[in-house]
Amino acid sequence: MQPDLLSPALAVRTLQHFRQHSPLTHCMTNDVVQSFSANTLLALGASPAMVIEPDEACQFAAIASALLINVGTLTQPRAVAMRAAVERANSAHTPWTLDPVAVGTLDYRREFCLDILNLKPAAIRGNASEILALAGERAGGRGVDTTDAAAAALPAAKRLAVRVGAVVVVSGEIDFVTDGERTLIVAGGDPLMTRVVGTGCALSAAVAAVCALPGSRTENVASACWWMKRAGQRASEICRGPGSFIPAFLDALYQLDQEAIA
Amino acid sequence: MQPDLLSPALAVRTLQHFRQHSPLTHCMTNDVVQSFSANTLLALGASPAMVIEPDEACQFAAIASALLINVGTLTQPRAVAMRAAVERANSAHTPWTLDPVAVGTLDYRREFCLDILNLKPAAIRGNASEILALAGERAGGRGVDTTDAAAAALPAAKRLAVRVGAVVVVSGEIDFVTDGERTLIVAGGDPLMTRVVGTGCALSAAVAAVCALPGSRTENVASACWWMKRAGQRASEICRGPGSFIPAFLDALYQLDQEAIA
Amino acid sequence: MQPDLLSPALAVRTLQHFRQHSPLTHCMTNDVVQSFSANTLLALGASPAMVIEPDEACQFAAIASALLINVGTLTQPRAVAMRAAVERANSAHTPWTLDPVAVGTLDYRREFCLDILNLKPAAIRGNASEILALAGERAGGRGVDTTDAAAAALPAAKRLAVRVGAVVVVSGEIDFVTDGERTLIVAGGDPLMTRVVGTGCALSAAVAAVCALPGSRTENVASACWWMKRAGQRASEICRGPGSFIPAFLDALYQLDQEAIA
Repeated sequence: MQPDLLSPALAVRTLQHFRQHSPLTHCMTNDVVQSFSANTLLALGASPAMVIEPDEACQFAAIASALLINVGTLTQPRAVAMRAAVERANSAHTPWTLDPVAVGTLDYRREFCLDILNLKPAAIRGNASEILALAGERAGGRGVDTTDAAAAALPAAKRLAVRVGAVVVVSGEIDFVTDGERTLIVAGGDPLMTRVVGTGCALSAAVAAVCALPGSRTENVASACWWMKRAGQRASEICRGPGSFIPAFLDALYQLDQEAIA
Repeated sequence: MQPDLLSPALAVRTLQHFRQHSPLTHCMTNDVVQSFSANTLLALGASPAMVIEPDEACQFAAIASALLINVGTLTQPRAVAMRAAVERANSAHTPWTLDPVAVGTLDYRREFCLDILNLKPAAIRGNASEILALAGERAGGRGVDTTDAAAAALPAAKRLAVRVGAVVVVSGEIDFVTDGERTLIVAGGDPLMTRVVGTGCALSAAVAAVCALPGSRTENVASACWWMKRAGQRASEICRGPGSFIPAFLDALYQLDQEAIA
Repeated sequence: MQPDLLSPALAVRTLQHFRQHSPLTHCMTNDVVQSFSANTLLALGASPAMVIEPDEACQFAAIASALLINVGTLTQPRAVAMRAAVERANSAHTPWTLDPVAVGTLDYRREFCLDILNLKPAAIRGNASEILALAGERAGGRGVDTTDAAAAALPAAKRLAVRVGAVVVVSGEIDFVTDGERTLIVAGGDPLMTRVVGTGCALSAAVAAVCALPGSRTENVASACWWMKRAGQRASEICRGPGSFIPAFLDALYQLDQEAIA
C-alpha cells in the first residue's frame, strides 16, 4: 500500500478526544527532557506523572492510562525499574511506548531495548538511525541526531512493526507512521525544532499518551505527530530563535484546536 | 477561629524581608521541577542549592537556612539521603518542609512520608488529596492532581498541624494555611497554573525558604502562597498559553514588590 | 604578562569555526541544569548528549568531541561513571573540562575534584571561591555564589593552570581566562544572569565544547566566555526579568554571528 497523507481534520478530531480523555501518562524518561515532556503533555491536555522507584513504577503502571519508556539517560537501576513497569503495564493492559534514544551508538541501551522489545510495545518512536538500529538492519549515528532520511528507514520500520505488533514512527523532516500494512505521512514542522532539546522525546510522550485512546492506533499516533509538527510550524513563525521557540511551541499546542476551528 | 484573608500589605512586607535575608535553601526535590524550582527561588531573591549525596546532604542541611523534601521522584537512595538530611537539619535547627507529592496513590512514598513526619517538619504543603492521605483520613487521587476541594481538607489539615506542630498548606483554587489554631486564606492565581508542571512544587520551595524567616511562621508561609498566586495572576494576564506563562511568571515574581509599590 | 582584553572579532571568528565543527559534547552535568545546558549548546551550534551509565559513558567519551564533568549534584554512582569516562576520554584524546560547583563548601565533591584533577582536564571553569578552593588556597562560599571577586583569585588560577596544564576560567562580573602565562579578560554580561539557574554551568558546557576546536585553547575558551557575556547582555536589554531572560538568552546565542556581522 502507498503511504497516505494524514488528514488535518482527523488530527484535530483526535485532539478533541484526547483532551476529553486526558490520559494519565506515566513517563519513565530521560533526565534532560522531563520538564519539557511534562509541559508538552499538559499543554495537550494529558496528565503526566514521572514515577521511577521500581515498586512505585509497577504500582503506577497499572493505574496509568499509558506508559512511556525513554532510554536517553538509562542507568542500571532505571533499567530494572523500567522492565518491571513494562511487565506490570502488560498485565494491566496499559499500552506502553518505546523511545530508543541513540540506540545505534551505545551497547548497553541497545541490549536493553532489544530485550524489552519482546514485551511488545504498543508504539515505537525514533529517528531513522534509531529505527534502523532497533530493527537490527544497521547501527548508525554518533549521537541523538539522525544521519538517515526517514524514508530510507521505512521498509525496516514496516518489518519491525509487523514483527513486534507495534505502530512505528520514523520521525524526521517528514514523519512516517506505520503498522506494517498502512503507512501515514505527516509533513510540516521546522528545522528549528532540531535546535531545541527534547522535541523528539516530547513527541514520544505524546505518542505514548495517545495510545490510551480507542480507535485506530495508527491514526491516533499519526495525529500526535501532526500536533507536534503543526505547533512547531506555528511556533517557528512567531519566535526569534530556539529560546523563544519553546514557550511559543507550548502555547501553540495549547491553542491547537481553537486555531483549527478558527 | 474563622479563617482570615491574608493582607496583601503583609505579604509584600514579608517579601521585602525575604529578599534582605536571601535564605540559602537546600532543595531535595523531584527530577522534573528542579530547574523551575531553582528559578522560582532566584526570582524571589533566595539562594537555592540542590545537594543529594547522603554525606553532602547532611553537611549542607546544617549550613543551609532551610531544607525542602519533595518526594515526587523518590527513589531508595534518595530516601536514605533525605532522611539523613532531615535528621541533621533538626539537630542544626534548620527548618524543613515536606511536599508529599502523590502520597495518596503510591505506597512506598506514603510509608516514607508517614515515617519522616515523626521528624517534625516546620511546614507541609500539598493539595487536598495529599493532605488528606498524609493525615491518614483518606487516600485519594490517581496522580498529582487533586480530586478534592481544598476547603474539604481543612479540618484534616488542622488536626495534622496540631499533631505534627507544623504549618500546613492545603493548596488549590484557594490556599488554606493553618497552624491548627489560626487559618489564613489566600485567593488569586489562575487555572493556567495547573497546565504548567511544577507550580505546586515551586510553591513548596518558597514555603521551605520562607520558614527561615523570623516572625509568625503562619503569616510567612501564607505570604509565600500569596506571592505565587499573585505572580500567577499577573502572568496569566499577559501570556498566550502555558508556554509563555512560565517566563511571565518568573518575571512577575521578580517584579512583585516593585509592582506592589506602584 | 599583563592580561589582554579578548578581541570581539576573534570571538566571532571562533564561533563561526565552532558552528562548522559542531562538536559532539558529552555532558555529565548536574540534574538542575541539563536542559538549559543542552539548549545552550544547541543554540551555539554544538551537539550535546547526556550519557551517564558507566559502561555507556566510557563508550561515549571515546566517540565524543569533548567531555564535561560538572559536580553540582554529584552522587557516588555518578562519581564512578565520571571517573571512568574521564579515563577513557584521556586515552581517546577527548579533551575534558571540570566545573567544580560549590567545591569549597562540601567535602565529598572536593575530594572527588582534587582526585580527578590528576587526570588533567583541558579546562576548568569556576567562580572565584571555587577556583581558590580547588587550588587549595582557601575554602570559601556557603553555596554556589561566589564571595570573592574574580580578580582576587587570578594568582591562584594561574598557579592551578600551570600545575594541571589546563586553561582556567575564573568567572564573575569579569571573566579571567588563563593558561598560567597568558591571561585574557572578558567583560560584559549582566547581573540578571545570577538570577537564572545554570548560566555558570552552561558556560562550562560551552567551554567544554570549544576545547574540541584546533587553535589556541586559551583564545577559544575566552571566546566561549565572550559568547555567553554578549548574549547575556543582549538578553538583559530586551527581557522583563529573569523569566523572559532565558528564551532571550538562547535566541541571542543563536543569532550571535548574524548580529556581529550586522
